[in-house]
Amino acid sequence: MSSEFAIIEDYFKPISVNDSAVVIGIGDDGAVLSLPSNKQLVVVTDTSIEGVHFPKDTQPFDIAWKSLAVNLSDLAAMGAKPAFFSLALSLPTGLNQNDWLKDFALGLKTLAKKHSISLVGGDTTKSTVLSITITANGWVDKDKAILRSTAKVDDLIFVSGNIGDGGLGLKKLNNVQGFQSAIQRLNRPNPRVELGLKLVGLASSAIDISDGLLVDLKHILDASHVSANVNLDDIPMTLEVKKYSAEINNPFFALTCGDDYELCFTIPKNKQHVLQTIQKQLSVSLTCIGQIVDGKKGVIQLKSNHQHLQSKANAFQVEGFKHFV
Amino acid sequence: MSSEFAIIEDYFKPISVNDSAVVIGIGDDGAVLSLPSNKQLVVVTDTSIEGVHFPKDTQPFDIAWKSLAVNLSDLAAMGAKPAFFSLALSLPTGLNQNDWLKDFALGLKTLAKKHSISLVGGDTTKSTVLSITITANGWVDKDKAILRSTAKVDDLIFVSGNIGDGGLGLKKLNNVQGFQSAIQRLNRPNPRVELGLKLVGLASSAIDISDGLLVDLKHILDASHVSANVNLDDIPMTLEVKKYSAEINNPFFALTCGDDYELCFTIPKNKQHVLQTIQKQLSVSLTCIGQIVDGKKGVIQLKSNHQHLQSKANAFQVEGFKHFV
Repeated sequence: MSSEFAIIEDYFKPISVNDSAVVIGIGDDGAVLSLPSNKQLVVVTDTSIEGVHFPKDTQPFDIAWKSLAVNLSDLAAMGAKPAFFSLALSLPTGLNQNDWLKDFALGLKTLAKKHSISLVGGDTTKSTVLSITITANGWVDKDKAILRSTAKVDDLIFVSGNIGDGGLGLKKLNNVQGFQSAIQRLNRPNPRVELGLKLVGLASSAIDISDGLLVDLKHILDASHVSANVNLDDIPMTLEVKKYSAEINNPFFALTCGDDYELCFTIPKNKQHVLQTIQKQLSVSLTCIGQIVDGKKGVIQLKSNHQHLQSKANAFQVEGFKHFV
Repeated sequence: MSSEFAIIEDYFKPISVNDSAVVIGIGDDGAVLSLPSNKQLVVVTDTSIEGVHFPKDTQPFDIAWKSLAVNLSDLAAMGAKPAFFSLALSLPTGLNQNDWLKDFALGLKTLAKKHSISLVGGDTTKSTVLSITITANGWVDKDKAILRSTAKVDDLIFVSGNIGDGGLGLKKLNNVQGFQSAIQRLNRPNPRVELGLKLVGLASSAIDISDGLLVDLKHILDASHVSANVNLDDIPMTLEVKKYSAEINNPFFALTCGDDYELCFTIPKNKQHVLQTIQKQLSVSLTCIGQIVDGKKGVIQLKSNHQHLQSKANAFQVEGFKHFV
């Protein structure tokens, strides 16, 4: 195995963006960053572990991409502009180190460049299990970060993109035929950074969907001390996800599977027309799936116009939902 | 095992310092920090893994203390004032979770309070191995961070405290009689944060000694493109470390064992008198161990007035030193 210093020099020093804010980057005891005026710093941290967050045979490019993407997704949910990140990489011996590191560094660099975020430091260590912790930082205008705790009664609830693709990808890893798109969404999620920036001053609350739509929406409801009605008929899903949900006879699959990295956000009714412009600008679908209502904090009422689905939803709310929160 | 949300709520939310800079702390997708004017941000990251960085039966209090201390030590080496940190904790199942977490949180809280650093967020995950990654942040006045790359020829080289205690502690973990002090220094190092702050504008370069005095000094020499003479007779060591080095017939033990978390720094000759005041103020010994000299970058010449030791040093420089860098 290459020494820590060689790994940093060869693979990670090149992952930097031309960023005047980075006064001192990789190579000292710490990085030094200059601070923009009238901004606040947003800090997010996410760990990805082999066998827990990604299967053992995932490609290093994809591992790196997703490890950074889940952090960028958190920054997006806060409405923050990505600025810099640090990487803690724990590597088991026995991997083909050079090939592995080269591909990992390429995945990290590709996504970092896309969102103009600089790698400024970190730590590489030996371990028995492959583990990646990224702490990512972004800027928001003073007191403009989008929080979980500020959803208001009557606000509409939206999600970006489609729900359930990542979860379907995970189920079909050994049976890729026809599911390449879902597997791509699992391995290389596109964090909704631009959308997050557009939602600043517009959304009343936001979260990124990592653990599952219902669990993550519940975080907003808990923090904001409100309830929600969610319309099952309106959940945006691909045909593949709908088919799979029918096959396994679980209409709630997409709402609970996680790995979406879409944004779930709330918006006052009188501002929803602005979303049409954003949809066009960013080529991203934004779908209203329900509404914030007064009631016990954290409660989600699932609604459907189809009697069969409504019955299942009623049963799910009593028996099934608590497993997911 | 408690859920991630319960762990955060019960154990980590209480670890915060009353800090007006923390606009949003633990509990959202990210933390939000307000920024002081005319400062720069210093970011450091260190991972500690069971079986790699600490032995398997280390107490959770000590694991937490040291995981934070090694990061504070990096901030100290940059001359930064600790401000906030995030914690990524990967926990194997099978630990007595509540007792373990309670003791871990207490260790973290005790050292965090001592240095007024706030826990603002993080991630807890399941894993097969216990691993802690901390990213710590501090403030320095604009362009005042102490770097590795700015040592100058003729500057004097100093170390704080004694060298070799942590390394001796590690050797004596199974034979604690008479070595409690060294083991304490291994498990609960005191990062030299106050010293680092005093050295701003005074030291020409600094590094913290984590991998071993010679390896870490070499980082300064490499970055500053200079050589150094180090006087073996002047290395500050306790009687226990001197005795142990003699027992194992290795006079270079303390210089290579690591785990010191003291500062090694350089200072222009005409400023060294200020160090006497600092020594008194902080009750910390500061010992001159050598001098920066012109020459091939990264080269350390070991010197001694004792012929026997000088012979050993000459042999060590040819055969032994390369194992440590």
